[in-house]
Amino acid sequence: MKNVKKNFDLAKQQYDDQESPIDQISATVQASIQKLAHLAQIPYGVCSGKKYCIYKVGRQKSRPFLPKLLITDPAQFNRSWNELLQATNRKQHCFDIDEQTASRVIYTCVMAFAICYDLWKPKSRKTPGTFFEVILGALISLLLPEATRTKYVTLPPPKSRKNLVASEVSEIVLEQEQEALQAGEEYASDDARTVSTDIVFNLPSGYGIVIPAKITTRERIVQPFAHQRILDSAMGMGRYISLLTCVSETQRDDKTKSVKEICVPGTITLFQEHLAKLGGIYYLDPPKRYLSLDEDKTIVVKPLAHLVTKGLNTLVRKLQKTPSARAN
Amino acid sequence: MKNVKKNFDLAKQQYDDQESPIDQISATVQASIQKLAHLAQIPYGVCSGKKYCIYKVGRQKSRPFLPKLLITDPAQFNRSWNELLQATNRKQHCFDIDEQTASRVIYTCVMAFAICYDLWKPKSRKTPGTFFEVILGALISLLLPEATRTKYVTLPPPKSRKNLVASEVSEIVLEQEQEALQAGEEYASDDARTVSTDIVFNLPSGYGIVIPAKITTRERIVQPFAHQRILDSAMGMGRYISLLTCVSETQRDDKTKSVKEICVPGTITLFQEHLAKLGGIYYLDPPKRYLSLDEDKTIVVKPLAHLVTKGLNTLVRKLQKTPSARAN
Repeated sequence: MKNVKKNFDLAKQQYDDQESPIDQISATVQASIQKLAHLAQIPYGVCSGKKYCIYKVGRQKSRPFLPKLLITDPAQFNRSWNELLQATNRKQHCFDIDEQTASRVIYTCVMAFAICYDLWKPKSRKTPGTFFEVILGALISLLLPEATRTKYVTLPPPKSRKNLVASEVSEIVLEQEQEALQAGEEYASDDARTVSTDIVFNLPSGYGIVIPAKITTRERIVQPFAHQRILDSAMGMGRYISLLTCVSETQRDDKTKSVKEICVPGTITLFQEHLAKLGGIYYLDPPKRYLSLDEDKTIVVKPLAHLVTKGLNTLVRKLQKTPSARAN
Repeated sequence: MKNVKKNFDLAKQQYDDQESPIDQISATVQASIQKLAHLAQIPYGVCSGKKYCIYKVGRQKSRPFLPKLLITDPAQFNRSWNELLQATNRKQHCFDIDEQTASRVIYTCVMAFAICYDLWKPKSRKTPGTFFEVILGALISLLLPEATRTKYVTLPPPKSRKNLVASEVSEIVLEQEQEALQAGEEYASDDARTVSTDIVFNLPSGYGIVIPAKITTRERIVQPFAHQRILDSAMGMGRYISLLTCVSETQRDDKTKSVKEICVPGTITLFQEHLAKLGGIYYLDPPKRYLSLDEDKTIVVKPLAHLVTKGLNTLVRKLQKTPSARAN
């Protein structure tokens, strides 16, 4: 695992330094695939028509995964990864590649690493989510070369705090954040002037694409909707578009040795109608019941590969035709 | 603990059946105080100028509490509890009693029980929160005899789902909820037609008072604001007023044997300005940094005893002067 962790740390460092961690991501995934090479895939039932497996080391079980999407041969991963990169079309903001190949490569990147952490570093629960963010941010950066990438949106100062000195606000904020980090819990960054939203691409037109990246949403599904609402209110309606990106909503059920999909389509319908409108939800392993929300036009729900092969192109074109957000 | 649990179960049953569990609450708290009678209070440091203690049984530690507010003598609790009940003023929607006595009685009700669960039933993590809800709902019911109490607000059917048969929606919803319960996690109820908000009082005037009750808010602070926003959007602005009620924001830090207050005043400021407006936040043990938000008029933050001795009266009077919500 030293090799996996070392490569991940470097990828994250490069990502945070605004460098492209593309090669480091590949190295991290290669190392992860090699760690898993000699383990047997244990069938763990069928859910929504999809066959899931898990890995096991001693008593430690991995999260469930789709063997159909997980590439286990390092050489094959290497070929597919290079195929994806070579398909980069900066002008069309997409990878010119079939959805199935894009899907398998990205799924393998995220899951091979996450499974290694499940098995050998189960206490580092948040690291797989961080790597998912790094992978997505790095790949979409290739498709939006003219955009700047950040992790948050800076808001105008809140009316009720205008009387506070700026340095005073920062001090309070930092203290809170440190406490939250120490507590090891997940907090919204406590800064009245920023909304932390995982990945943000600021386009030259003045529009912004906000990309929350979550392995699963669980009870945190409210977050991207609440953030979108705040952005609509503070920055002007339509200036930022949120695209929620996730891996799956599956959960291992060890009692029945099977996989469950935990979905809340009613809640999403309610939020989309009364809280704020997301531009779409994109899954590497889309839950069947959320795809129904796409079918009945409640909200766009598509495979993540669709976003990077088609959806982003459509969105950026649409924003180019709309009057500049800056001019507003 | 059998006696504590038996009395709690009965109190909850009566509460869910729309009966008044007042005597059962008292019995539950009496039993809890008796369980703690022979334990020593261990000082656990000072936080925001307040002295905290914990209880310990073997290696099991309780949550931190304020010895100044916790009544440990069953007879004294009995006297204060009866004093509170006798001070019920239905016409003025308040307890005619000093804030300090109200504060100590309610704090003791919630905390004596919660501490027992920390020490002897640490796996039942959610039960103390449920008892807090039962206590608050039961006490405020005494002050609002003309209101009907529910646990949720029913919304008009969502536009995007109008084409679904009603029974179909219910079926989906129930299935999700069951799964969520099985997973033992905390979900928003997955019903596109209801918002679950702990306690709701529907006033004859057509207005509603929504009372989310949380031991601590942690990263769930977004929930009451998101719910308020949904109610504003779906039911009409101002029809429902949310009063968030909490115990404290303290956390035990065993490394330093002290108590920390985890606060996010910047986040609350942001939510209050851009997500939705709460009518107020009421704490049994108010964090110092949130009281500053009250001082600078960002949002009402007061001791919970203030709500039941004064605040509710003011709010109900204000709503009576405003044109009927039903007529709107």
